[in-house]
Amino acid sequence: MTAQPDQNPDNGGKITISVDAMGGDAGPAAVVAGIELSAKAFHDIAFVLHGPADLLEPLVEKRRALRGRVVFCDARDVVTMEDKPAHVMRNGKGTSMWSAVETLRSGQAAGVVSCGNTGALMAISMIRLRKLPGVNRPAIAILFPSRNRQGFNVMLDVGADIRADAPDLLQFALMGASYARNGLELDHPRVGLLNVGTEEHKGRAELKEAHSLITDHDAGNFDFIGFVEGSDIAGDRVDVIVTDGFTGNVAIKTGEGTASLIGDLLRQAFRHSIMSRIASVLALSTMYRLKQRIDPRRVNGGVFLGLNGIVVKSHGGADATGVAAAVGLAYRLAKSGFAAKLAARVAATGNPATKSDTKSDTKSDSGQAT
Amino acid sequence: MTAQPDQNPDNGGKITISVDAMGGDAGPAAVVAGIELSAKAFHDIAFVLHGPADLLEPLVEKRRALRGRVVFCDARDVVTMEDKPAHVMRNGKGTSMWSAVETLRSGQAAGVVSCGNTGALMAISMIRLRKLPGVNRPAIAILFPSRNRQGFNVMLDVGADIRADAPDLLQFALMGASYARNGLELDHPRVGLLNVGTEEHKGRAELKEAHSLITDHDAGNFDFIGFVEGSDIAGDRVDVIVTDGFTGNVAIKTGEGTASLIGDLLRQAFRHSIMSRIASVLALSTMYRLKQRIDPRRVNGGVFLGLNGIVVKSHGGADATGVAAAVGLAYRLAKSGFAAKLAARVAATGNPATKSDTKSDTKSDSGQAT
Repeated sequence: MTAQPDQNPDNGGKITISVDAMGGDAGPAAVVAGIELSAKAFHDIAFVLHGPADLLEPLVEKRRALRGRVVFCDARDVVTMEDKPAHVMRNGKGTSMWSAVETLRSGQAAGVVSCGNTGALMAISMIRLRKLPGVNRPAIAILFPSRNRQGFNVMLDVGADIRADAPDLLQFALMGASYARNGLELDHPRVGLLNVGTEEHKGRAELKEAHSLITDHDAGNFDFIGFVEGSDIAGDRVDVIVTDGFTGNVAIKTGEGTASLIGDLLRQAFRHSIMSRIASVLALSTMYRLKQRIDPRRVNGGVFLGLNGIVVKSHGGADATGVAAAVGLAYRLAKSGFAAKLAARVAATGNPATKSDTKSDTKSDSGQAT
Repeated sequence: MTAQPDQNPDNGGKITISVDAMGGDAGPAAVVAGIELSAKAFHDIAFVLHGPADLLEPLVEKRRALRGRVVFCDARDVVTMEDKPAHVMRNGKGTSMWSAVETLRSGQAAGVVSCGNTGALMAISMIRLRKLPGVNRPAIAILFPSRNRQGFNVMLDVGADIRADAPDLLQFALMGASYARNGLELDHPRVGLLNVGTEEHKGRAELKEAHSLITDHDAGNFDFIGFVEGSDIAGDRVDVIVTDGFTGNVAIKTGEGTASLIGDLLRQAFRHSIMSRIASVLALSTMYRLKQRIDPRRVNGGVFLGLNGIVVKSHGGADATGVAAAVGLAYRLAKSGFAAKLAARVAATGNPATKSDTKSDTKSDSGQAT
């Protein structure tokens, strides 16, 4: 370590984000460019940057907006995309990823961002940060472009674990609703359980059980709308989609694959003739607007829910824009005090009528709007 | 019944398709318009049309291309989208759907098409046509737009059953490969097993078991490429994607929902300014080409695999173009003798090295290229 981080979330009013500079496909330069974008966007953000300091310091020096806002934490090893989580848990202490999580654990940062190996990041986060009391399985929540007013739906789990039983799905509903309130500023999110049909008799046994658990639990700070289908993921019927990590992972990758195919076909179609080439020039700003709306880089960031602390997994292939989106997400969640709210929310599971310290939720006098 | 069907698949060289005129959202007029399109496309196609004859006869009379090619089968009842399969199995004998399947069972038609309730159609098909010997769970296979040369991938199961264990997944691989050979004319389709990652250690236990079953079985008339991900559904790494009906159903609906969202946002973007409106006029033919390429109506039709006979489920909301696509699919499969080939293929499961009556597959001397 070349310098001790001298900031913490409460220090000088700065929100400090711990950033793993290594392990992403685009390399540390993209990460440094990304945190500079974030530094320009948020006047009160600061960083602890993890990786080989001799590599990172020159990259940061070139970026004026980062001056005085970055503390370096020298870590020589890197977790690769091929490393198995179990291996990293045993041998990963010298990696930038481990170091980044450690800075969060010690309270020197309010959130951590990494572009690296998802399984390894979850494994390190689980052993170093520990699960929130009462949480059985943590989940990864992402934002998916949708027809909703806010432009996105929350979906979880998208790959923390391939399994989820009914009590897990109930916790995903609570955590997802809490995330929608803090991440999308929805006071009263609509929560749906992903199934193959909307009728109550459809689907697997654990889904029917989860349906009644969530119905019974409903403390009034979200609307449980019952079963939803794959077509609702990009729709406007629901704000939070609850599913197991296997189904959620297949669904988001299918959505991304479909969007990418359409984008390529659109480009091909525009190259087809002289007329279509002229049209494509005139349509440039139109296409730009469309891209802005559904650009996956702008909603980059899977949030690990159910741990003691805010961990944001950026897409491995994220460029500067993508990194900035993930850092911005960690920053906003840290600033809103999300970690503490989520912990309180989950602690209330199974006993929703005992506490009433809610601020934002006026529709219920029994649940916590966290 | 107002007339006895006087055709059968072998009668006068005609390929007769049994069509349920009722139960679709667009009503019988769309179905009749659809079969007229098919009649224009295929000179040797004929129809048995099921539903209230007094309603259907005037609709058919107006369509010149249908003259002399439609036999009516009067059925007064209709299966609705809300009817539960178990109810239809007990009380559905008078419905147009039941009647349509019955015509296939009796050998008077070579394939059946319905736009109605999927669960009910599967239930009726199961009890009247019966499963192929050796098949545990039938599957529904659809075509999904992809980057592949043929423009589509086969995916199954997309909703016949919410479960599939390892031996089922092996059968899906065999049936899907057979369908790709006969439906997409791929001699040597690449088959992949849908998972959350491509590494062999990933995923649920039944997937790892299925992976080794398919690897062991591989008789040489398809390439088993191992695990594939959601992003491969619209990609070019694989031709046949094997999964359970829960995951498959969520995936196709997610893909459809994403495509539909992008289409709507594209239209919105083109309406944004005068410049973008001008661009949209110039881009009309470009957009038309794109739409042709991924129009779900043009690949409308889920094929039930694993039954004695060809059953094609058209989308409930299909218009004439969609109905014609589903009828065309049933026609092509009937003409290729797919039902018999599939039966032979499945009968060889577990004993792939005993038969060698293949015509189209020259790469293997042990398996049947059916």
